Amino acid sequence: MDVSVIGATGYTGVELVRLLNQHNRINLNILTSNSFVGEKIADIYPNLKGEVKHLCEELDIDKISQSSDIVFTALPHGVSMKYVPELLNKGVKVIDLSGDYRYDDVDTYEKWYREHNSPELVDGSSYGLVELFRDDLKGANLIANPGCYPTVSLLSLAPVVKENLIKEDSIIIDAKSGATGAGRKLSLGTHFCEVNNNFKAYKVFNHRHQSEIAEKAGLLGDTKVDLTFTPHLLPVNRGILATIYVDLKQEISQAELKELYQKHYQDDRFVRILAGDNLPELKNVVGSNFCDIAVKVEGKRAIIVGVIDNLIKGSAGQAIQNMNLLAGFDETEGLTDVGLYL
Amino acid sequence: MDVSVIGATGYTGVELVRLLNQHNRINLNILTSNSFVGEKIADIYPNLKGEVKHLCEELDIDKISQSSDIVFTALPHGVSMKYVPELLNKGVKVIDLSGDYRYDDVDTYEKWYREHNSPELVDGSSYGLVELFRDDLKGANLIANPGCYPTVSLLSLAPVVKENLIKEDSIIIDAKSGATGAGRKLSLGTHFCEVNNNFKAYKVFNHRHQSEIAEKAGLLGDTKVDLTFTPHLLPVNRGILATIYVDLKQEISQAELKELYQKHYQDDRFVRILAGDNLPELKNVVGSNFCDIAVKVEGKRAIIVGVIDNLIKGSAGQAIQNMNLLAGFDETEGLTDVGLYL
Amino acid sequence: MDVSVIGATGYTGVELVRLLNQHNRINLNILTSNSFVGEKIADIYPNLKGEVKHLCEELDIDKISQSSDIVFTALPHGVSMKYVPELLNKGVKVIDLSGDYRYDDVDTYEKWYREHNSPELVDGSSYGLVELFRDDLKGANLIANPGCYPTVSLLSLAPVVKENLIKEDSIIIDAKSGATGAGRKLSLGTHFCEVNNNFKAYKVFNHRHQSEIAEKAGLLGDTKVDLTFTPHLLPVNRGILATIYVDLKQEISQAELKELYQKHYQDDRFVRILAGDNLPELKNVVGSNFCDIAVKVEGKRAIIVGVIDNLIKGSAGQAIQNMNLLAGFDETEGLTDVGLYL
Amino acid sequence: MDVSVIGATGYTGVELVRLLNQHNRINLNILTSNSFVGEKIADIYPNLKGEVKHLCEELDIDKISQSSDIVFTALPHGVSMKYVPELLNKGVKVIDLSGDYRYDDVDTYEKWYREHNSPELVDGSSYGLVELFRDDLKGANLIANPGCYPTVSLLSLAPVVKENLIKEDSIIIDAKSGATGAGRKLSLGTHFCEVNNNFKAYKVFNHRHQSEIAEKAGLLGDTKVDLTFTPHLLPVNRGILATIYVDLKQEISQAELKELYQKHYQDDRFVRILAGDNLPELKNVVGSNFCDIAVKVEGKRAIIVGVIDNLIKGSAGQAIQNMNLLAGFDETEGLTDVGLYL
Repeated sequence: MDVSVIGATGYTGVELVRLLNQHNRINLNILTSNSFVGEKIADIYPNLKGEVKHLCEELDIDKISQSSDIVFTALPHGVSMKYVPELLNKGVKVIDLSGDYRYDDVDTYEKWYREHNSPELVDGSSYGLVELFRDDLKGANLIANPGCYPTVSLLSLAPVVKENLIKEDSIIIDAKSGATGAGRKLSLGTHFCEVNNNFKAYKVFNHRHQSEIAEKAGLLGDTKVDLTFTPHLLPVNRGILATIYVDLKQEISQAELKELYQKHYQDDRFVRILAGDNLPELKNVVGSNFCDIAVKVEGKRAIIVGVIDNLIKGSAGQAIQNMNLLAGFDETEGLTDVGLYL
Repeated sequence: MDVSVIGATGYTGVELVRLLNQHNRINLNILTSNSFVGEKIADIYPNLKGEVKHLCEELDIDKISQSSDIVFTALPHGVSMKYVPELLNKGVKVIDLSGDYRYDDVDTYEKWYREHNSPELVDGSSYGLVELFRDDLKGANLIANPGCYPTVSLLSLAPVVKENLIKEDSIIIDAKSGATGAGRKLSLGTHFCEVNNNFKAYKVFNHRHQSEIAEKAGLLGDTKVDLTFTPHLLPVNRGILATIYVDLKQEISQAELKELYQKHYQDDRFVRILAGDNLPELKNVVGSNFCDIAVKVEGKRAIIVGVIDNLIKGSAGQAIQNMNLLAGFDETEGLTDVGLYL
Repeated sequence: MDVSVIGATGYTGVELVRLLNQHNRINLNILTSNSFVGEKIADIYPNLKGEVKHLCEELDIDKISQSSDIVFTALPHGVSMKYVPELLNKGVKVIDLSGDYRYDDVDTYEKWYREHNSPELVDGSSYGLVELFRDDLKGANLIANPGCYPTVSLLSLAPVVKENLIKEDSIIIDAKSGATGAGRKLSLGTHFCEVNNNFKAYKVFNHRHQSEIAEKAGLLGDTKVDLTFTPHLLPVNRGILATIYVDLKQEISQAELKELYQKHYQDDRFVRILAGDNLPELKNVVGSNFCDIAVKVEGKRAIIVGVIDNLIKGSAGQAIQNMNLLAGFDETEGLTDVGLYL
Repeated sequence: MDVSVIGATGYTGVELVRLLNQHNRINLNILTSNSFVGEKIADIYPNLKGEVKHLCEELDIDKISQSSDIVFTALPHGVSMKYVPELLNKGVKVIDLSGDYRYDDVDTYEKWYREHNSPELVDGSSYGLVELFRDDLKGANLIANPGCYPTVSLLSLAPVVKENLIKEDSIIIDAKSGATGAGRKLSLGTHFCEVNNNFKAYKVFNHRHQSEIAEKAGLLGDTKVDLTFTPHLLPVNRGILATIYVDLKQEISQAELKELYQKHYQDDRFVRILAGDNLPELKNVVGSNFCDIAVKVEGKRAIIVGVIDNLIKGSAGQAIQNMNLLAGFDETEGLTDVGLYL
């Protein structure tokens, strides 16, 4: 099984490289980069020194298609769609980590992102949130890997939405992310001295992922879901924690709700419903593909807290989970490291 | 004007000492400490070396009363009330930084804290959230300095609660605090390696400050306020940011709401309503007595974001603001340093 | 191959558990703990939830000896030696992560630590710094796993000491460590608010590891080595960087010195000599068993900079590298993950 | 006394603004900025909101000269010298925070920086390390404010160099700085995710400040000083700690050496020689103009540890200390706040 990565030198790309390097059942073939053609990736990311010998290559669609069974496109939104149609035409399977093929509704995409150049492919793509849409993924040719905030939000919401337990317009997602979510591109907002010791909300009522979460949550239940989503920037590198507030249609005990969650995810190794009074913490999942969830109930309000490593379950790890599905490997292959904790 | 600090070697106590040392109109007289009697406070907190010469003394109520016009009690909940009644009896004015005299309703206090030993004083105490209760404070003998979470929450909520603009059961306060809020006492939860790189919610549906916020918000408006309050622990030393979600009774534009806030706080130097799309950030207030607030509206949901330095506006700075009122000084005396930003 | 861990719930112990859980060729058998007998280790370290099912047991030397081929003792100094002699008597091989069996010279141990209860075993122990003492380790019964500071210091110094290139009394090691080096035990010095944003030197001229480095460096060369060692505390969890200053006996070019280092470590996968002007950084090794080293020369002064993850190459990872040697596995088995970088 | 700041929107410039805003004896007049002409400085640095009303102006030498008694130039190296000569011609006193006028030896400047356009002024400038060169400063027209690393290094070295106690070629300065030292300019090396959790040495044997320290240390003693200087980047915003190793010509006890330091700085409020076994820590000086120093001796080696806030004593605070001297104010005016500690 030959796999390649287009856009290997961004934070998401190199996380794919790091994880694929630990994967025992694939051959990591071509790495492309726009900025570092001809350089060893281990010179750009010296953690890889001695272990990953690849040079960064210029993107050559013919070459990469001929020499890859699966290609990951770890490109900015709007750039992926320049290459994905051709890759699919050449018969290669694509796992796209951008937002370009995540939406069922092209209008929503175009409202939040930009004009789409291949809306006909949107229908053919599968949304790669494995635990929730596994059946759609196995034979897919194009998997749209979910956004980081949507991953943790949807995994946290799915059981109550599917069971129709909550008022659809009551969902509030207060999410907090580490700075790797903003990538390697320089900006004052990710300058060390501006993020360190700091904390802030950003894009209040105005973040793209609100629309992705709403569309997919709508697919899980019967009705259109309306929600408020507020992202915040944490002074850490990795991890997202989402504190989600919902109003229950009817009272349900905390124990019952927890049991519902446990049952829903009982076959999903990467989703862990916490027992007792335990609450999720970044440090339990950072470095791993796990999503930890706790539920709390008081009266008719429930609070669901979910946490992931945004670069793994929220991005590269989930992409590899999708690759495992496409390749017929065990879904957890190469992804079973637990969080670093410290 | 002689002032003294009982409990000067906790994080709140030493912040009082640091700020009082910069105050030009008082004489810092006695510092007491339980753990460090006879030691120079500058040996325990070497930032004070050369500038604050005081020894830590054992608490002697007679001595401190005779030599102080105002006494700050920076003691744990339940300990303050052992000393406050006697201090008042001796004719000294007291600013108490614990929770012991914050509640109007002793039952609520006793539910969340412990049995009260001087419930008769609860009535006589004034809640020292200056911008909201200034008129009650000027002649007070006992001021209960507000909790850190309540300070930022109530300042952020007051205009909409007073104007009766929101559904009283719709308030959700998602608050995030730095670790100094937990004080100097050792615990695994504040061990460096456990907090660094980490983030978590704690005491979901179960934090004492929920009841303090609810009681005081109720005083601002016409009706009982019900609210959900979720605290989180940030990997920073100082600062609290609260993201507050409310449902509006009627639609009101963002501009109108902002104007309402600006008008409400137009005479309060320490409360700054942000203009344009600006959002509060910890780094703009850390090191200062300011509270920055922004309001956002979409449809019938409003989001109010407030931020303070928990050790200053949320504790020692506000206590000095109260002292300034009691002493007849300019309310801002000694408190006008802006945030460090970096 | 059955392995067990005595003292599994300290930071070093749980790092052993995390890494052994990823190791494909051993069975992780018994975990003991003093403080958490009967509890699931995954309840204490929730990163392990679902993946490590072990309960923490009380230490039973008979039971652990019968059911283990190799036992790791991850205990405080002075505690290890209470159990190691008996374990050896029962025929089990021991890898001890404390300082108790690291010294050849019992007097030095006793000067820096405490009275030794089994000095006769000191001779029989092997110092487990694999790259430097590999030949002594393969048949060992008792391996003393090196200290974290000594690991990075000795790997950085070995080539110049062995080749007799430096003045023996010129070595200055200025080392900076993350806070996990101080373990899970609570103290004001590792309280979050005291370490965050802070940096300090500690135990100047007075840290135990000075004597361990000096003794072992002396074994590498011909003569007694005298050195100055200054540790500092970094506001990070993991990682040690040592900046080492030495005076060269004779001028040697930077290129020649680098070549000497490359040759010395050419067969050691975990030691990487950096090329060109590259300098070591914590983030390239944190999460991995690698040690990165750079050498710089100006005139007759050389600076050698080395970096490791103190919990992996400086402790648990190196212990597993030793286990691999004892078991006849490939030395790198289970240890080839690269650093997380972010 | 009217003062103005040229280059007010860099990290050094805005720190000047913050501190000058707290200074009771000057009028802060004009702020210039290259990038933000016409904007309120409080919109760029919202910590200043409500307190500093100034707009950023384009630089107009005539205007600024006419309306200022003293001008601070907080500009990059090479840019300052474009404006300083003209400012001096117009009769204004200048405190320059760049490296352009720090050197006595123009050749050294040109070797490490660039061609100098006004070498004739180099002679007329005074090196503004107040505690060491106070007498040269009082009547100066042009004060070159020292570099941050040189400030802490020279204050730490001065007593032993002046007294001729150390071997001149034995000095090793291992210095560690927070990221504000690199300023507000974006670069991958100061991107949040690259600095957080990380630590590294940089510019080994090759940092400009080595030459500044060497030249000025040479002025303190009798002979040319040779030294090794290694800077490192700490994952904090503020603070520099320097660990300095020197070889003593003759043995001297730790007590004697400490007494020498205490005597040397007995009249300098901002330099604190630590007592007993205390060692400097960033948190004791961050937010203040203090420099804390400890000395340790073993045999003929001494270790001197010094610490400052790089933006205050290492830059803006020291510049204001120089302003106070020029203006005939008390040298400590506006600079007596102690460190924040937390």
